[in-house]
Amino acid sequence: MSELAEALQAHLGTQKVTINETALALHSKDESYHTPSKPEVVAYPTCTEDVQAIIQIAQSFSAPIYSFGLGTSLEGHAIPYEGGVSIDFSEMNNIIAVKEKDFLVTVQPGVTRSQLNQELKKYGLFFPVDPGANATLGGMAATNASGTTSVRYGIMRDQVRDLEVVLADGTIIRTGNLAAKSSSGYHLNGLFVGSEGTLGCFTELTLRVHGIPEHIVAGRAAFRTLDDAVAAVVAILQAGIPIARVELVDEPSIAKVNAFSDTAYSQKPTLFLEFHGNEAGLKQDVAFTKEMVADYGCEAFAFETDTAARNKLWEARHNLAYAYVHSAPGRKLMVTDVCVPISQLADAIRTARNAVTRSPFEGGIIGHVGDGNYHVLIMIDPANADEIEAANRLNEAIVNDALARGGTCTGEHGVGIGKLKYQVQEHGPALGVMQSIKHALDPENRMNPNKLLYTKTEDVV
Amino acid sequence: MSELAEALQAHLGTQKVTINETALALHSKDESYHTPSKPEVVAYPTCTEDVQAIIQIAQSFSAPIYSFGLGTSLEGHAIPYEGGVSIDFSEMNNIIAVKEKDFLVTVQPGVTRSQLNQELKKYGLFFPVDPGANATLGGMAATNASGTTSVRYGIMRDQVRDLEVVLADGTIIRTGNLAAKSSSGYHLNGLFVGSEGTLGCFTELTLRVHGIPEHIVAGRAAFRTLDDAVAAVVAILQAGIPIARVELVDEPSIAKVNAFSDTAYSQKPTLFLEFHGNEAGLKQDVAFTKEMVADYGCEAFAFETDTAARNKLWEARHNLAYAYVHSAPGRKLMVTDVCVPISQLADAIRTARNAVTRSPFEGGIIGHVGDGNYHVLIMIDPANADEIEAANRLNEAIVNDALARGGTCTGEHGVGIGKLKYQVQEHGPALGVMQSIKHALDPENRMNPNKLLYTKTEDVV
Repeated sequence: MSELAEALQAHLGTQKVTINETALALHSKDESYHTPSKPEVVAYPTCTEDVQAIIQIAQSFSAPIYSFGLGTSLEGHAIPYEGGVSIDFSEMNNIIAVKEKDFLVTVQPGVTRSQLNQELKKYGLFFPVDPGANATLGGMAATNASGTTSVRYGIMRDQVRDLEVVLADGTIIRTGNLAAKSSSGYHLNGLFVGSEGTLGCFTELTLRVHGIPEHIVAGRAAFRTLDDAVAAVVAILQAGIPIARVELVDEPSIAKVNAFSDTAYSQKPTLFLEFHGNEAGLKQDVAFTKEMVADYGCEAFAFETDTAARNKLWEARHNLAYAYVHSAPGRKLMVTDVCVPISQLADAIRTARNAVTRSPFEGGIIGHVGDGNYHVLIMIDPANADEIEAANRLNEAIVNDALARGGTCTGEHGVGIGKLKYQVQEHGPALGVMQSIKHALDPENRMNPNKLLYTKTEDVV
Repeated sequence: MSELAEALQAHLGTQKVTINETALALHSKDESYHTPSKPEVVAYPTCTEDVQAIIQIAQSFSAPIYSFGLGTSLEGHAIPYEGGVSIDFSEMNNIIAVKEKDFLVTVQPGVTRSQLNQELKKYGLFFPVDPGANATLGGMAATNASGTTSVRYGIMRDQVRDLEVVLADGTIIRTGNLAAKSSSGYHLNGLFVGSEGTLGCFTELTLRVHGIPEHIVAGRAAFRTLDDAVAAVVAILQAGIPIARVELVDEPSIAKVNAFSDTAYSQKPTLFLEFHGNEAGLKQDVAFTKEMVADYGCEAFAFETDTAARNKLWEARHNLAYAYVHSAPGRKLMVTDVCVPISQLADAIRTARNAVTRSPFEGGIIGHVGDGNYHVLIMIDPANADEIEAANRLNEAIVNDALARGGTCTGEHGVGIGKLKYQVQEHGPALGVMQSIKHALDPENRMNPNKLLYTKTEDVV
């Protein structure tokens, strides 16, 4: 056992610190195709003081720190390529307070979104942000996750009212307050959300929650072509219909859904839609939407009238990445994540579809199209260098296209290591500002080093 | 003429650089009670390159830089206490592009909110953020302004999709992109919005705009007591009614409104309300709200049925600060700006009302109560030391109360110099993080120095 591991055990006890091979292997990877790499030691804090102690002990050994939630990230965010300590937050999973009158909840970072929603239901509340995986809220804040409801309720960053963060030197700060808005000081909430563990470790989150809508209507609209489906989305958004969810699932992806989730949805390019509101307003929105999708050749608009069928629909959508993984044993998932302005969406998706067709992969396109965010999913053999190269070429073509359209290389998955190479191209001299901030807050580059931005001097732009 | 002024004139010409006494006096103050102080020179750039040149020339003279929009700030933000260059952005007032399909607009920083809305009307769009003053959008972004519609459409920070910023060393960066969401890199949009000119000068803003709602209904609900009015607001919010505006105007403030705006509103604690939506949904929301306010003893719910009366209502609300100023010639406005969690709003406003009653001032309370944000307005004689001391005591009592309730010292006006003294109390060690960021991006402390946070070494927390 290394001196670092011994020092951590001496302080925290053997229950909270391990070098067990299974634990090291579990913390060596995420759900992506990126190459695994083991940490030196894994720590399981149960409170803020534990996290502070781990960080301070690691500092005395000049050891790097990696935050680990449930390992559901898709760009290698939590992989400890430089060894050091992987801090696993799964034991910090208490819902500390539900402040229902303020529409706020305070949680530890290891609480998952499903666990939170289970609890919130008792109060008639829900937490909207829903990446496919049942991720931890700490991880979701670290990557600025979003999902199917962001078109209506916003992304993770919009929900974070306050964070408790332990910085690289062990200082504990609070980034916000409990008021609905503030113009006091720099926007640290916004800075730390999406910082991917590079600026500090989250130990407590206060999040906005929302009332469960009075009425919910969900449905599937099937189209003749992908183009028609995308054109219909753009029309719905531009008409100002306050849609709560609008998800694109292309033909190959519907096939995966049906195979994995035991559904029998019509195998056509499809929009999964949901409306939230009061009864009268919603009726008008739905009627208007039906007229509108008909204009784009919608062949069938199937309502999911009961709660079970509605839940099934969204479960099938959330499991789509797993459906791809399940369909190709031994292969690893690579998923693009660009986001473009709505006016560019139709052309961008057409370009992506053509790029997939030209590639050696089958591939599917799905997306949170209400935000202009879509994913190409392909399954690759990590042992096949040609496939990896072809996959990288596809990914690059799609990212370059999105950036040329005024978009971003990652709408919701984050940079990790997978999107590092696009940061100069996307941000230009602004990357230098990010590097200055990183250097100011983590001068030794020990917090999830070499993720999100290059921090080595020679890479400073 | 100083060497700095000469150097600026040599580069930009005499049209764009002045030391005219009237110009210096105009740039020595804002709309607040804070002591004026003249800049050394005023520059009027017309493009980004001008701003870059001004900043670089100022740097070579180690001179400070102050951004000035229309001088409507309320906490001394733009007052050049250290001399230097006041950059007046009023000549950079072009609306560069309306991207109606993306619900985006790109503007220069000197465009005012009214100017923008005038243009957007042609496209069926509007920009929601509406501080009382017809401020510039650059200034509104710098202070993270909000207003009456934030409860529905969000604050200034929520509207900023991209900024062009000239940094302290003349580097030009872009802080965002045109996509609806991004997880790429640190959230520079959020960091620069609300930075009050301390990190750089904004030269271009890309902002979200919104479709003019299908239906709008506005009205006034008068109550017997302030307590009843606030309790009604809390009930409306907790019922999840998607109200677009809900403004509290207390009894003394209704008197000021009637005197200044030539209205005859019933002199009672009143809520100004507005609903946006489709016809059917809105009808249901309004009916529900009427029932709800009746439960809190609402004595009269007066709808403003035609557009003119509705516009009059909001114009009267927007002019309220000027109504106070007009009522007390020779006196200066001091206005508090705390924001508290909704569950604390009723108690906080009761505490504020009692504090005003105990003070030597008449004072009124108004607020964007849907956000938990309220203002106490008092008129003070800047030459009377006793009054200033009493005003400061009142302000402090209200801020301390808000912070104790988990709130913030400023909901929308910003820190400037007026709220500086509360920053340690509000942010604790997080203020050190803000100072590190400031130091990293403006190591010479020349961008609006000594505003928003203390940057002198001895003050670092």
